[in-house]
Amino acid sequence: MNNMINKRIWNSQKSKRKQKLEQAKLKGFEKQVAHLRTIELLETVIACGDKVCQEGNNQKQADFLSKALSQCNPEVLNELHILQSVLALPSHLDVFEKGIASKVDFSFAGPQSLRLAQLVQQQKISIGSIHTYLELYGRYFIDLTPNVCLITAHSADAEGNLYTGANTEDTPAIVEATAFKSGIVIAQVNELVDKVPRVDIPSDWVDFFIVSPKHNYIEPLFTRDPAQITEVQILMAMMVIKGIYAPYQIQRLNHGIGFDTAAIELLLPTFADELNLKGKICTNWALNPHPTLIPAIESGFVESVHSFGSEVGMEEYIRNRSDIFFTGADGSMRSNRALSQTAGLYACDLFIGSTLQIDMQGNSSTATVDRIAGFGGAPNMGSDPHGRRHSSYAYHKAGKEAVDGQVIKGRKLVVQLVETYREHMHPVFVEELDAWQLQDKMGSDFPPIMIYGEDVTHIVTEEGIANLLLCRSEEEREQAIRGVAGYTPVGMQRDQEKVAELRRRGIIQRPEDLGIDPSKATRDLLAAQSIKDLVKWSEGMYSPPSRFRNW
Amino acid sequence: MNNMINKRIWNSQKSKRKQKLEQAKLKGFEKQVAHLRTIELLETVIACGDKVCQEGNNQKQADFLSKALSQCNPEVLNELHILQSVLALPSHLDVFEKGIASKVDFSFAGPQSLRLAQLVQQQKISIGSIHTYLELYGRYFIDLTPNVCLITAHSADAEGNLYTGANTEDTPAIVEATAFKSGIVIAQVNELVDKVPRVDIPSDWVDFFIVSPKHNYIEPLFTRDPAQITEVQILMAMMVIKGIYAPYQIQRLNHGIGFDTAAIELLLPTFADELNLKGKICTNWALNPHPTLIPAIESGFVESVHSFGSEVGMEEYIRNRSDIFFTGADGSMRSNRALSQTAGLYACDLFIGSTLQIDMQGNSSTATVDRIAGFGGAPNMGSDPHGRRHSSYAYHKAGKEAVDGQVIKGRKLVVQLVETYREHMHPVFVEELDAWQLQDKMGSDFPPIMIYGEDVTHIVTEEGIANLLLCRSEEEREQAIRGVAGYTPVGMQRDQEKVAELRRRGIIQRPEDLGIDPSKATRDLLAAQSIKDLVKWSEGMYSPPSRFRNW
Repeated sequence: MNNMINKRIWNSQKSKRKQKLEQAKLKGFEKQVAHLRTIELLETVIACGDKVCQEGNNQKQADFLSKALSQCNPEVLNELHILQSVLALPSHLDVFEKGIASKVDFSFAGPQSLRLAQLVQQQKISIGSIHTYLELYGRYFIDLTPNVCLITAHSADAEGNLYTGANTEDTPAIVEATAFKSGIVIAQVNELVDKVPRVDIPSDWVDFFIVSPKHNYIEPLFTRDPAQITEVQILMAMMVIKGIYAPYQIQRLNHGIGFDTAAIELLLPTFADELNLKGKICTNWALNPHPTLIPAIESGFVESVHSFGSEVGMEEYIRNRSDIFFTGADGSMRSNRALSQTAGLYACDLFIGSTLQIDMQGNSSTATVDRIAGFGGAPNMGSDPHGRRHSSYAYHKAGKEAVDGQVIKGRKLVVQLVETYREHMHPVFVEELDAWQLQDKMGSDFPPIMIYGEDVTHIVTEEGIANLLLCRSEEEREQAIRGVAGYTPVGMQRDQEKVAELRRRGIIQRPEDLGIDPSKATRDLLAAQSIKDLVKWSEGMYSPPSRFRNW
Repeated sequence: MNNMINKRIWNSQKSKRKQKLEQAKLKGFEKQVAHLRTIELLETVIACGDKVCQEGNNQKQADFLSKALSQCNPEVLNELHILQSVLALPSHLDVFEKGIASKVDFSFAGPQSLRLAQLVQQQKISIGSIHTYLELYGRYFIDLTPNVCLITAHSADAEGNLYTGANTEDTPAIVEATAFKSGIVIAQVNELVDKVPRVDIPSDWVDFFIVSPKHNYIEPLFTRDPAQITEVQILMAMMVIKGIYAPYQIQRLNHGIGFDTAAIELLLPTFADELNLKGKICTNWALNPHPTLIPAIESGFVESVHSFGSEVGMEEYIRNRSDIFFTGADGSMRSNRALSQTAGLYACDLFIGSTLQIDMQGNSSTATVDRIAGFGGAPNMGSDPHGRRHSSYAYHKAGKEAVDGQVIKGRKLVVQLVETYREHMHPVFVEELDAWQLQDKMGSDFPPIMIYGEDVTHIVTEEGIANLLLCRSEEEREQAIRGVAGYTPVGMQRDQEKVAELRRRGIIQRPEDLGIDPSKATRDLLAAQSIKDLVKWSEGMYSPPSRFRNW
């Protein structure tokens, strides 16, 4: 029994928070802060060594706050530990170069991946870990709880109630972890309004807000111009629809970003409709509002879409399609990356995406040796969730294909959709992933593999579909992969007889095995051939960003 | 190109919602509804065939609304599809018996599992699927989106801002899915106040609220009286601490409910402290505020706890331990089941729990043939998340143990902690799970297995620890399981030589192999031996429910 007088202080986090807020008050800061005093505020309420969560989303960025943080005095503020989904802006790395922050835990660094690798080599930044999104949010509640978060919203009222607008994205998860563990929540907003259209973040979760001199940056990350879709991509999309979506009756799904999956979306109203698949496939989505999904929505293929974030230009269209999208009483979209990733993990039957390299075990990676790009949401969506317990036609069928005996569980379909060669004639199929070299460079425990071979069920190339579920040995899997690897060196080294056998068994399917004539794979099949066509399909409600307008 | 005039209505859900709200207005309903008019309200704003999400949580219950729903007129309201985490109260099944609802999708039906099975046999209820919690929430955003939700909160202000109090639990996930897809949100609250202590649900997400004549029901589900912990449980807890937590340096973890894991919690300040493990194990938790964790917290073992829900009687203690628990600015706990399950899945290195049956492949189940109990959170927490990409000592070590060659990923530790015989001398270890018979009865695609053998890494019984990671074949796994199955029939059929070999290889460890003397496993080792001791440890701040007070 504990008989000592207990001298431990149990509310030190609350005390620290209180001290910071008192300091701010002494300096005359109120809840609304003038943008010119942002650096001073940050230097007051952030302490050296604090965990600071910056809202670097997939799309919207707390760019004003991030820039202000990077302009703080490193003699005042240093050794910060940055927590951030996406390292997207130069300022996200400036804080390391300037010695304000020293460590980062993140998910994705696409636009900054080259510079990140350089900073690691210069030992100016220490990487804690690289995560998939949902995993990083999970850690916010366990061992990476922010002391301060810098978020962004569209508008605030005088009390500090926040309206995020359509790009709610990470905001609720970040704020919840911070506000309820005695942290400090600072928001930049585009405008101050009398009444917010809806409350996305209640004012009592927010400590300070700043009307930023410029609107926050949002990247139209999911807009793909149909004009750039090639006939090879159309052929592969036909195979996916006829060879995977139809036989597995895929209704609930997620598409990765890219022209390959955009081609599938644009074939639904044409090729898939001719196959009489409307209402039978692609009804319920975890997906950002891809403009290329508009024709499928208008054609009646789609019942619902829940989104991680929104997409610039889709606002009016979404508002007028509330049966499809999640919207608030005000009519604008409500997205939520944490919940949509949860839905993508557990409620979807299929994930399909592209990659840069695939090895002979089916492991895939987007890592290249001089860049540290990270993962985003792919490892989460592209993994078989062993916790899942509900069945579906697709899940059950895939589960049965994977075993010879009694079926105790199903399988999520995880499809990798790639051309055998990518740009600059780099073969996608390789004996060894570059990820192994990157692991050495980074000194990490594991190679940065995007999707593990054991979770991949199908690989689709211009040469055909390999169904890895039906393989009964490592050797068969390897030959199934080589059998669709085309004229890449590893494809050329296939065992012709074994590949022929796999084809007879339906493990490899060529276009002709699916009744698909490659000569029919023309751009005429696309429901929209340009951004302008998408605008037409939307009855003028889709308003693409200017960089996508060429008319 | 789509040249037809598009006649589809795209905002039918919003229109339906509007009509319902107008009907309610015509009948004189305002946002705050008198409790005597609840049935009338429900009959007005729920339509036949609607998906209705009832807040049946693990702990708190929207019991007043559930009862009212069960008293509606089945000629007015029928064919409802109920979505609900936990079927806990008689009224949750009354709606089916009375013909108001016909279908259910749920997670757990512990207290109602026998009656549920009977109603299924009588064809009065059709089960969609049985889910793990996070999976069910995921589906709320994909294909099981509620038209109406019936939730519960502690208090509301006049505008309808809701304060859930410590048991926030499922509320945010349910309301978000409903409010942002044109559904109707109805809340019962315990009291109307001038100002809520904090806003958990903003008023503009809420359509109606009712001050219930009685406070909502909350079950103290996680309170275990130390007086009931046996010496066998203490022995097993010693083995877990010394044989698993110490060598794997388990810092981030989740414990299931039960006396077995309560014993571990109560050995931290004594046995684990003597082993010099303070600060090295059990620092960061995804866990409800178990009273049996108080001594470990007071002894300085614990750094943080994020909770799915709260626990009756722990309010004051939590308020005074804000460095440990997640609390709001008002001082009370903020729980969140969706986010804590996410943390348990992706940020924890270990899940440990008990079960009723384990087969020779390591599959475990709590299903018995005449009950349909469901799963709760175990399949989610007790599965290896293939999406995880961050490493830790435990995750890396487990990953290395599982393979002979190159390590490409880690492994979550999933431990099953059981005595070889449970009550009424039922052997836990069996050749075939009862789950297979239940599958036949239910006509489901898969047997209701709680945790799949492929995810289980260790089985701990009074006879020892079996480390399944180190097994190199199905046969070795089977013998490792038999080798700790004691005097059960399957344990008796072990291959003695093989078991001896497994022990030499460290795959099976007996207490003596771990340097544990079973005669030392006495109740003296427990940091608290009664509920009263827990109150003392808490300096009087833990206030147990009356049924746990015997002094």
